[in-house]
Amino acid sequence: MIDSEYNLSSLFIIPLSSKYKNMQKIKLGMMGGGIGAFIGDAHRRASRICNDYQLVGGVFDIDFERGKEFAQQQDLDVNRCYATLDSFIEAETALPKTERIEAVSIVTPNMLHYEFASKLLKAGFHVICEKPMTFTIDEALELQKVVKESNLSFALTHTYTGYPMVRQMKEIVKSGALGKIQRVDAQYYQGWINSIIHGTDSRITGIWRLDPKVVGVSSCMGDIGVHAFNLVEFTTGLQIEKVLSDLNSVNDDIQLDLDGTVLLRFPDKVNGVIRSSQVAAGEENNLSIAIYGSKASLKWSQEEPNFLYLLSDSEPTKIYKPAHAYNSQFAEASHVMPSGHPEGIYEALGNIYKGTAKAIRGEEVFEGEFPTVEEGVRGMKFIHKVVESHKEGNIWKEL
Amino acid sequence: MIDSEYNLSSLFIIPLSSKYKNMQKIKLGMMGGGIGAFIGDAHRRASRICNDYQLVGGVFDIDFERGKEFAQQQDLDVNRCYATLDSFIEAETALPKTERIEAVSIVTPNMLHYEFASKLLKAGFHVICEKPMTFTIDEALELQKVVKESNLSFALTHTYTGYPMVRQMKEIVKSGALGKIQRVDAQYYQGWINSIIHGTDSRITGIWRLDPKVVGVSSCMGDIGVHAFNLVEFTTGLQIEKVLSDLNSVNDDIQLDLDGTVLLRFPDKVNGVIRSSQVAAGEENNLSIAIYGSKASLKWSQEEPNFLYLLSDSEPTKIYKPAHAYNSQFAEASHVMPSGHPEGIYEALGNIYKGTAKAIRGEEVFEGEFPTVEEGVRGMKFIHKVVESHKEGNIWKEL
Amino acid sequence: MIDSEYNLSSLFIIPLSSKYKNMQKIKLGMMGGGIGAFIGDAHRRASRICNDYQLVGGVFDIDFERGKEFAQQQDLDVNRCYATLDSFIEAETALPKTERIEAVSIVTPNMLHYEFASKLLKAGFHVICEKPMTFTIDEALELQKVVKESNLSFALTHTYTGYPMVRQMKEIVKSGALGKIQRVDAQYYQGWINSIIHGTDSRITGIWRLDPKVVGVSSCMGDIGVHAFNLVEFTTGLQIEKVLSDLNSVNDDIQLDLDGTVLLRFPDKVNGVIRSSQVAAGEENNLSIAIYGSKASLKWSQEEPNFLYLLSDSEPTKIYKPAHAYNSQFAEASHVMPSGHPEGIYEALGNIYKGTAKAIRGEEVFEGEFPTVEEGVRGMKFIHKVVESHKEGNIWKEL
Amino acid sequence: MIDSEYNLSSLFIIPLSSKYKNMQKIKLGMMGGGIGAFIGDAHRRASRICNDYQLVGGVFDIDFERGKEFAQQQDLDVNRCYATLDSFIEAETALPKTERIEAVSIVTPNMLHYEFASKLLKAGFHVICEKPMTFTIDEALELQKVVKESNLSFALTHTYTGYPMVRQMKEIVKSGALGKIQRVDAQYYQGWINSIIHGTDSRITGIWRLDPKVVGVSSCMGDIGVHAFNLVEFTTGLQIEKVLSDLNSVNDDIQLDLDGTVLLRFPDKVNGVIRSSQVAAGEENNLSIAIYGSKASLKWSQEEPNFLYLLSDSEPTKIYKPAHAYNSQFAEASHVMPSGHPEGIYEALGNIYKGTAKAIRGEEVFEGEFPTVEEGVRGMKFIHKVVESHKEGNIWKEL
Repeated sequence: MIDSEYNLSSLFIIPLSSKYKNMQKIKLGMMGGGIGAFIGDAHRRASRICNDYQLVGGVFDIDFERGKEFAQQQDLDVNRCYATLDSFIEAETALPKTERIEAVSIVTPNMLHYEFASKLLKAGFHVICEKPMTFTIDEALELQKVVKESNLSFALTHTYTGYPMVRQMKEIVKSGALGKIQRVDAQYYQGWINSIIHGTDSRITGIWRLDPKVVGVSSCMGDIGVHAFNLVEFTTGLQIEKVLSDLNSVNDDIQLDLDGTVLLRFPDKVNGVIRSSQVAAGEENNLSIAIYGSKASLKWSQEEPNFLYLLSDSEPTKIYKPAHAYNSQFAEASHVMPSGHPEGIYEALGNIYKGTAKAIRGEEVFEGEFPTVEEGVRGMKFIHKVVESHKEGNIWKEL
Repeated sequence: MIDSEYNLSSLFIIPLSSKYKNMQKIKLGMMGGGIGAFIGDAHRRASRICNDYQLVGGVFDIDFERGKEFAQQQDLDVNRCYATLDSFIEAETALPKTERIEAVSIVTPNMLHYEFASKLLKAGFHVICEKPMTFTIDEALELQKVVKESNLSFALTHTYTGYPMVRQMKEIVKSGALGKIQRVDAQYYQGWINSIIHGTDSRITGIWRLDPKVVGVSSCMGDIGVHAFNLVEFTTGLQIEKVLSDLNSVNDDIQLDLDGTVLLRFPDKVNGVIRSSQVAAGEENNLSIAIYGSKASLKWSQEEPNFLYLLSDSEPTKIYKPAHAYNSQFAEASHVMPSGHPEGIYEALGNIYKGTAKAIRGEEVFEGEFPTVEEGVRGMKFIHKVVESHKEGNIWKEL
Repeated sequence: MIDSEYNLSSLFIIPLSSKYKNMQKIKLGMMGGGIGAFIGDAHRRASRICNDYQLVGGVFDIDFERGKEFAQQQDLDVNRCYATLDSFIEAETALPKTERIEAVSIVTPNMLHYEFASKLLKAGFHVICEKPMTFTIDEALELQKVVKESNLSFALTHTYTGYPMVRQMKEIVKSGALGKIQRVDAQYYQGWINSIIHGTDSRITGIWRLDPKVVGVSSCMGDIGVHAFNLVEFTTGLQIEKVLSDLNSVNDDIQLDLDGTVLLRFPDKVNGVIRSSQVAAGEENNLSIAIYGSKASLKWSQEEPNFLYLLSDSEPTKIYKPAHAYNSQFAEASHVMPSGHPEGIYEALGNIYKGTAKAIRGEEVFEGEFPTVEEGVRGMKFIHKVVESHKEGNIWKEL
Repeated sequence: MIDSEYNLSSLFIIPLSSKYKNMQKIKLGMMGGGIGAFIGDAHRRASRICNDYQLVGGVFDIDFERGKEFAQQQDLDVNRCYATLDSFIEAETALPKTERIEAVSIVTPNMLHYEFASKLLKAGFHVICEKPMTFTIDEALELQKVVKESNLSFALTHTYTGYPMVRQMKEIVKSGALGKIQRVDAQYYQGWINSIIHGTDSRITGIWRLDPKVVGVSSCMGDIGVHAFNLVEFTTGLQIEKVLSDLNSVNDDIQLDLDGTVLLRFPDKVNGVIRSSQVAAGEENNLSIAIYGSKASLKWSQEEPNFLYLLSDSEPTKIYKPAHAYNSQFAEASHVMPSGHPEGIYEALGNIYKGTAKAIRGEEVFEGEFPTVEEGVRGMKFIHKVVESHKEGNIWKEL
C-alpha cells in the first residue's frame, strides 16, 4: 500500500534519534512538591519531558497523610512515600541497588535545601536542588565540600540556563565574536508582590514570601535577582569581582528588599548592572540580558526565549533561533522540534534534567549543561554581599 | 525548623491542584512513531506532559526488528511491541480489561490513518490520530460513521488549537466582543521545501513529501493549509461555504502544490482568505490568523503563541497573555505556569491529550478541548475542494 | 575659547553636505489643499522638509473666498491665489520666467486629477499629483501621452516608495540576493470606514468617501489596494500579468468594495496575493509586503518603516535599518538622521518631492526616486481590472 | 463636475485646521549650523515642519566665508549672515521691529551655549538652545536669572519630550492612573563611540567628542545620560533627590565617561536607575523608560516612538498610539497624520519649535510643551553630580 521505493520507517522529516535515544530510566525521588506545589509539578514535568527519569517516591509533604494522598494521585507505590527524610534514606538505601531511588529532587522551601541536600549526598543519592541553594554562604561552602567528597552529581535548577538560545549566547561569547566585553546589563522584573503589599491578593499565605525566617536575608535578590546574576556569569564566562547595591523594601512595614539595583564590577574595566523588582506592576517574568562587546553584542529576553539578537555597529542585527545548523552543538542539543515550533520553560528545565541524567550515567556533558554547586556558592555570595552592601550604606563588597 | 504559623505544605505560590490532579493513567498504544520519528516523539512527550497516559506498546515500525529495538530504547515491555495492526488488536483485546491498552495514537504516514483508525475503533480502542485525518473525503465520512457507532473518543491532533491563547480567541469571539465578523485572514508559511526543490538538502528521502501516493492530492494545503483552515473554523465558530483557490507547484517537475491562496466565502457577506506556502524562504512555522469584526478584531501568531492582540477602532490595542484572571476558564485550564513563563508547542499538544483523556474518563470537557472527527471531515473537504477549484480553473467549490 | 586643533565648523558628527546641499528653490503652486485639507498639508510639509520648493500660490479651494483666507493664513501673496485653474494658468504664464510658478501639486479629489494635470502640463508646469492618478484607464493613457509630449516632470505620490527601507528592498531584489522570486504577498488593512458604515462616526461628510461619483469605481482597491499594488511592482521589479479578485461591500447598502482579496499571476510561475480592507477594525495603516525568493526573502511593514527583514532558510534573519553603510546608495540618500532616529511618513513624501526636484533641475535621479506616469497607468489598470474581475464572477483579467 | 450635495472644500477626512492654522512667521536666526552641520539642519527642518518660523540669518560658521557660502546655499539674504555674535546683535537690533530677527537657535558646540544665550537674551532675542544648556552649574544658574529678567521665551531642545507618546506618558502619570510610583528605570544606549575608541572610524575629527575642553566634564552622561534624566523628570513629574554613579571610561587613554549607571533616589521611598552607554555595540539610539506604579506601569522606547505600553497586574497590556480620541489633548496636539502614519524625530523637534512659537506669540501652551531653563539647570546639576559621585568613590550626591 506504499510505494516500495520508500521505507516507511524513514518517512519522517528529521532524523532525531541522536537527540532522544532513551536509556533505562533513572529512579527519581522528590522532597516536597506535594499537593498544590507549583515548583514540584514543574520538576516532575521536566523529568518526564526529557524521559530519563521515573518518579518512584519521596517525602512529598510535611503532613504525611497529605503526602500519601499525593502519591496515590500520582499513581505511585504508596510504600515509597515516606514521612521524613531520615526514613526515606533508611528505607531506600536498604533496597537492592537495581530497585532503589538513585537521584532526588529537592523542591522544599529554601531553609531546608542545605540539610536535605547534604544528607542525601552523604547517603549516596544524586541531587537536583531548587535555588537559592542554601540559606547562608557558610552552608553553601559546606555543601560544596560535601558534593566534592561524594563523587555524585549535584544540579542546581537555574532553569533559564536550559533555554537553547541562552546556551547559544554562551557559545557565541566563548567563540570571541563579541570581542572584549565592555558592559553587561541584566534585569529581572516581576510585579506579583504588588498584590500582597497592596492587599489586593486573596492568597493570605503569600505573606510567608516576605518572612526572613522562611526565605532568608532577601526577597527580590534572593528569589529572582540571583537568577539574573547566574545568567550574567553563565553567558559571559566572567566572574563579578564586587557589587554595590541599592535595595528598596517599598513599604515601611516590609523587612526585605522587594526591588533593587546592583552595580557590578568585573576585572579589566568591565562594568555592569543588575536591576530587579517584584513590584514592577504588570511585569510578568521579564528576565532580560544584554552583553555589549567591542565588536558585537547579544540581547535575550525570557518571555520570548527563542529569539536571540546579535547586534553590531556595522552589520544588520541578526536574529538567532533554535533548530538551525548555524547554532552551536550545545544549543542544538537543547531543542527538539523543527524551527518555528516554540519550546518553553518546561523544556528548558527538561534540558537541565537531561544534562544531569547524562552526568549521572557518566556520559560526556556540555560545559554548562546543568548548573553546579559552584554556581550555587556564587549565587549565595551574591545575595549576601548585595544585602550587606545596602545595609552598610551602599558600598562596594567583594564577591 | 519552620515557623509554626505557616504550614509547610501550603508554602507555594499558586494552588494548582485543580489544574493537575492526576488519576490513574490511561494505557496508551502507538502506531508508527519508532526510531527517528519526529511526530511520534512529539505525541509521546505530550502524553507525558499532561501525565494522563502511560505508553505501553504498539506497532512502532514497519520493520518489526527496528520496532522492537525502539521498544527497548523506550524501556517498554517488548512483548507489547507488535509486528502488525492485526496482531496488536488480537493480542491486546485478549488481555484483561485492567491490563490492556485503552487508547492508541496513530502517527503513521497519511495513507494509513483511515485503515488504522477504523480497525482500532471497531476493536474498542479510543483513537488519537494525526492529521490530515484520511486520504479521501469518502474515507473521512466513513470514519465519521465508525466513530459515531463506536461510542469511543476520537481526537484529531490539530495541535495549534491546544494553545491557551487560541482557546481564548475562540472564547472572545463566542462572547460577542468582536460584533459581527467581517473578514478572516489566515496564513501558514514555511520555507523548508526550498531545500528539497532547489537541491540544497542533504536529506534525499525528503522527496517522498512531494509524492501523491504518500501524501495524497496536496502537499502545501494538505500538510499545513488545512491547519489554517481548522484554526479559522475553530476560532470563529463559522463554517466556510465555498472556496476558490490558486495553487502553485513552483517547479515544473513537481506534481503537487507547494504554495497557494484560497479565497473563502462564509455566510452573510463574510469573506476571507487563507494563504499558505512551503517555499516561503526563511519562514519557519508562521501560522497566523486575524479575525476582523465590526467592533473589534483579534490577531494571533504561532511563533509567539502567548500573545493575543485585541484591536479596536476606539481603544488601545490589548495584549492578552496566559495565566491571568481576565481570561476565560478554557484558556486558563490550558496553562499551568504563572504568567510570563512561556509554555510551547509540546504543552499545546499536551492540552489536546489532556482533553481527550477527560473525554475517555467521561469527564466534562470544554467545547473544543480536542478536535473531533467532524473537524477531520471538514479538513478533508477543504483539501480536496481547494485542489479541485484550482484544477478546474480557479472556480468556486462548495465545501 | 576652543582648542585650536579643532575647526569649529567641522565639529559635527556626520558630514551631511552631500545630502542636503540646497539650491535655489522651485516655485510651487497647489491645486486644492486649502483650509482643513489633510493631504494638502502633508504635501506642503514634504515640500518644506526637502527644502527644494517655495509655495507661492494656487487654487486652494472651490470657494474663492476661503481660498484667499487660506493664502493669508499661509503668509502667501494673496494675488497668487486664484479662483480657477484657467485663471491660474493665464496669470502665471504671463509672468516672467524667473517669477512664475514652475511646478504644481494636485491634491484635489480624484475626479479632477486628469483635467488639472493635463492642462497644467500642456501649459508648461511640472506636476506632482496625488493618487489614484485618474478616474479611468483611458484618462490615464491619455495623460501618459501628455506627459511624454511635454518633456516635463510628472510625479505621482505613491508616498510609501519614499521610505528608505522600501528603497533598500528594491535594491536588494535588484542585486539578486533573493534568487528567483517565488511568491509575493502584500496587504493594506485599515479600519476607519467602520465608523461610517456602522454609524459611529460623527463626520457625516465622510459618506462621500463611498460615492462612486467622487471616488470612482472602487473604494478599498482605489484608495489603498492600489498602494499595495504599486509597492509590489516597485519592489519586485516584476509586472503582474493578471488578477482575479473577490471584493466585498460588507453592507448591503454600500455600492463600492470596502474589502477584498486579489490573486496575482506574474510571468514564470510566480504567484501572489494582495489583501486589502477598510473595515479591518482596529487596523490603522497596516501596509505590509513579503517577497519570497528561492534564496532569501524580504518583509517590511509601514507602521514600523525603519525595519526591513531579510530571511533565509540557512542564516539568521537580518534586520536592515537606515543610516548604515551596508545599505544601497539609494536608501542612504533617503535618510538624513544618524541611525536610530526614526524618520517617518512626512520624510518619505519629502523624499519623493526631493527626487522630483532633482528631475526638474535636470539632475540625475535614482531609478524609482519618484513614481512616474507609467506607474499611474499601471495603477489605474489594476483598480479597473480588479473591479471587473469581481463583477464578472471572479475570473482572471489581464493587466 | 462634482455632485452638488458635497462641498468640495469639505472633502477631506479630518478637519485639521485647528492643528495647523498658521500665522505670520517668526523671523528666526541661527548660531552655528553651517555647512555640514548635522544638528543645525535638524533645527531648520523642525522650524519648517511646524511652519511657524522663517529662517532669515545668523552666524553660521566660525569661518565667515563658509558662513556666507552656506547662506547662499540656503537661498538667504547674504547681508543677514554675520561674522560674529556681536555684529549680529548690533545689526539686527538696529533694524525696524517688523524686519528684525525675533528668535535665535543656538546649535554651536556646548562651550558656547552660555555666552551666546545670555547675550542674545539680554539683547532682546528669544532663544532656542541645544542641550546640554551650559558648561557648568554656575553658568546654568546665571542663565536662569537672565531668562527670568528678560521676559522672553527660552527653550532647551530635549527633543524626545516632543514625541506625542512621551507627552501622553506625562499626562497618564498626572492623571493618577499609575497609583504611587514605585520605581523608575531609564536607559540610553548608543554604540557609535566604539568606532572612535577602537580606531575603526574614518572620521578623525570625531575625537573632539572625547575632549573635556569641548564637551565639558562628561561624555556619555553629558551627551545622552542627561536626556534620560530629563525624560525621567518630565514624565514622572518627580524630582530626583540624590544620585550615586559608577562611570567607565572603558579605555585607559580616555579621560571621560563613555558608559555608566546612576542610582536614583526620589522622595518617599521611590528608587530608580539610569543606565547609559556610548559603547554599547550595535545600539543605535536606544533611549527607553519604564515607570512602575502601584497600580499600573508605562514603558516607551525611542526607536519605536509611536507605541506606548500600559501594563497592570490585572488587565491586558494596552498599547497607546497617536491620533486617537483616547489620548490627552496634549498628545493629540503633537501629531498631525491619521493613526498608523508614523511621525518621527523631526516632527518631535517640530513640536518643541511649535510650542516655543506659541509662547513667543503669547498663546497658551501645554505644561511641558517645550523644555525650559529650569530643566536646563536640573540637567547641569545631574551631569556634574554624577561625575562627582563617581570621582569621590561612588557616593550619594544631592541634586
